[in-house]
Amino acid sequence: MVGNVPVNIDMIEAARARLHGHARRTPLVSSPFLDEIAGRKVLVKAECLQHTGSFKFRGAWSAVTALPNDVRGVIAFSSGNHAQGVAYAAGLRGLSAVIIMPRDAPAIKIANTRALGAEVVLYDRASEDRDALGAKLAAERGLSLIQPFDHPQVIAGQGTTGLEIAEQAAEHGVTSAQVLVCCGGGGLTSGIALALEQYAPDMLVRTVEPEGFDDVAKSLTAGQVVTHPLRTGLCDAIVTPAPGQLTWPVLQRLCGPGLVVSDAQVLAAMALAFERLKIVVEPGGAVALAAALFLPDQIAGDSMIVTVSGGNVDRDVFQRALGAARA
Amino acid sequence: MVGNVPVNIDMIEAARARLHGHARRTPLVSSPFLDEIAGRKVLVKAECLQHTGSFKFRGAWSAVTALPNDVRGVIAFSSGNHAQGVAYAAGLRGLSAVIIMPRDAPAIKIANTRALGAEVVLYDRASEDRDALGAKLAAERGLSLIQPFDHPQVIAGQGTTGLEIAEQAAEHGVTSAQVLVCCGGGGLTSGIALALEQYAPDMLVRTVEPEGFDDVAKSLTAGQVVTHPLRTGLCDAIVTPAPGQLTWPVLQRLCGPGLVVSDAQVLAAMALAFERLKIVVEPGGAVALAAALFLPDQIAGDSMIVTVSGGNVDRDVFQRALGAARA
Repeated sequence: MVGNVPVNIDMIEAARARLHGHARRTPLVSSPFLDEIAGRKVLVKAECLQHTGSFKFRGAWSAVTALPNDVRGVIAFSSGNHAQGVAYAAGLRGLSAVIIMPRDAPAIKIANTRALGAEVVLYDRASEDRDALGAKLAAERGLSLIQPFDHPQVIAGQGTTGLEIAEQAAEHGVTSAQVLVCCGGGGLTSGIALALEQYAPDMLVRTVEPEGFDDVAKSLTAGQVVTHPLRTGLCDAIVTPAPGQLTWPVLQRLCGPGLVVSDAQVLAAMALAFERLKIVVEPGGAVALAAALFLPDQIAGDSMIVTVSGGNVDRDVFQRALGAARA
Repeated sequence: MVGNVPVNIDMIEAARARLHGHARRTPLVSSPFLDEIAGRKVLVKAECLQHTGSFKFRGAWSAVTALPNDVRGVIAFSSGNHAQGVAYAAGLRGLSAVIIMPRDAPAIKIANTRALGAEVVLYDRASEDRDALGAKLAAERGLSLIQPFDHPQVIAGQGTTGLEIAEQAAEHGVTSAQVLVCCGGGGLTSGIALALEQYAPDMLVRTVEPEGFDDVAKSLTAGQVVTHPLRTGLCDAIVTPAPGQLTWPVLQRLCGPGLVVSDAQVLAAMALAFERLKIVVEPGGAVALAAALFLPDQIAGDSMIVTVSGGNVDRDVFQRALGAARA
């Protein structure tokens, strides 16, 4: 069932029950060295340690396990983390998965998606219509489309991150804090915001985006969706042109002003996560940590909670981060 | 109380109670890509995610919390992970800590140890007697010495890793496996072996060391302690010259034949941990993963359990690992 269905806390709770024993309860980590930089406690939800290296596995598993038993298989468009999440979740569930990827996607991501059991269908960005190709394949084979964020069960799955944040922060004695979330289309952010609305009402979610891709921050300021041209950048996982139709109403209702970080701050945050937390973070997964460390004046409270949303970064980019921060 | 006291399971259980809420229960992670390389399930206990970036915090916390209330402070010799573990544990406990470090230790490690609240006393390796200096300071100030591995409460603390391995592996349906442990002086290995003897008797611990520093493997073969000259190498965290007086009897009684890996295998394992697990692993912390991936013919069973013991690696060395594995 896909469509303009609002997501509620019951759906997130139900997703948690389906994820139990399949998704990882990722740790909430910290370092006194990061606390010192930020001037307060920084608790980091390390979703780079989730299956397939990003939170996307949660939404994918939630979606495939919500499908009826007679489903023929699933289909998704993605060149990145959603592709791997859907491929792995479908495979574990015994479902076939078709992932439509651009022909110029990195060879390693195509290889990984295939290795996780999916059939990869390549298309030419310039000459082919991705949506038409997907609709044709879905109709011919009876496949169910799993959107990367505008899908109720995907949002519900990402929301399980918020349930864990509420519980784990409470174990640290933190029940009131701003929660910084790496924001692309808003699936993770809206899911977390809905979970915290119920279980940690004194927490406020803040979106974080890279400079030049701050469509959500601009939309929150304008009070209506502001769209950016579709292009790519360092933070490739979250360079969506606009918040989604399902996610935007949640973001508008529950989130504080959006935060925006530079590429240099993102690279420095990646290096600090390497050095102080011993986790591998991709650029798009590091924006929230960058905001915590380098924009503390824009964030209120004695503690901050930060999502690190993924760790699927090429060696070249990671080496650039380690080199940049030394300079 | 320090001395030739054997460690037993009750001491490990007691250490767990003291560590609860202070040490992290680090995750047991895995990747289908690593399983494929090893030809079976590989479960990785990620102690690089422990406080101060290595398992050493467990033993340090266990030791400082076992001291009498009127203790004046603690003292330790270390240029590495034990220094940071003791400094942080003592600070959290409100105890002063003196760490004796060689004057030529990396500036960053000296700075980190100071930043964690310890007083660092530097000595000259060539002209000064470290043990005499430590004994003098300990006597003058009434400090309690915390040895890196030949200390019953340190071994008990490291053994809590084994309790968690038994529980977490069982959640994956694994109760019988070889457990590969990065081995220096044998504190972690003997602690884990004692815990598994009680709670997972069908698991067999195997020590893993780097080539040229395989004193434990040679000792296990010889049936008596074999000592290597003290020198350093890529795997600086575990290049001890011989197993300890307290650890050796446990290793001899409970461990299978020792495994030995090359520096090239260590660097490749670090790169694969980066790529597939999204964790930062130091060379000495990667030897067990290297054995799992590259010596599968020497390891029996359908599943393997691997400790990753630490992540305190300089950027230069990490970049070398990422570059080496690409070649």
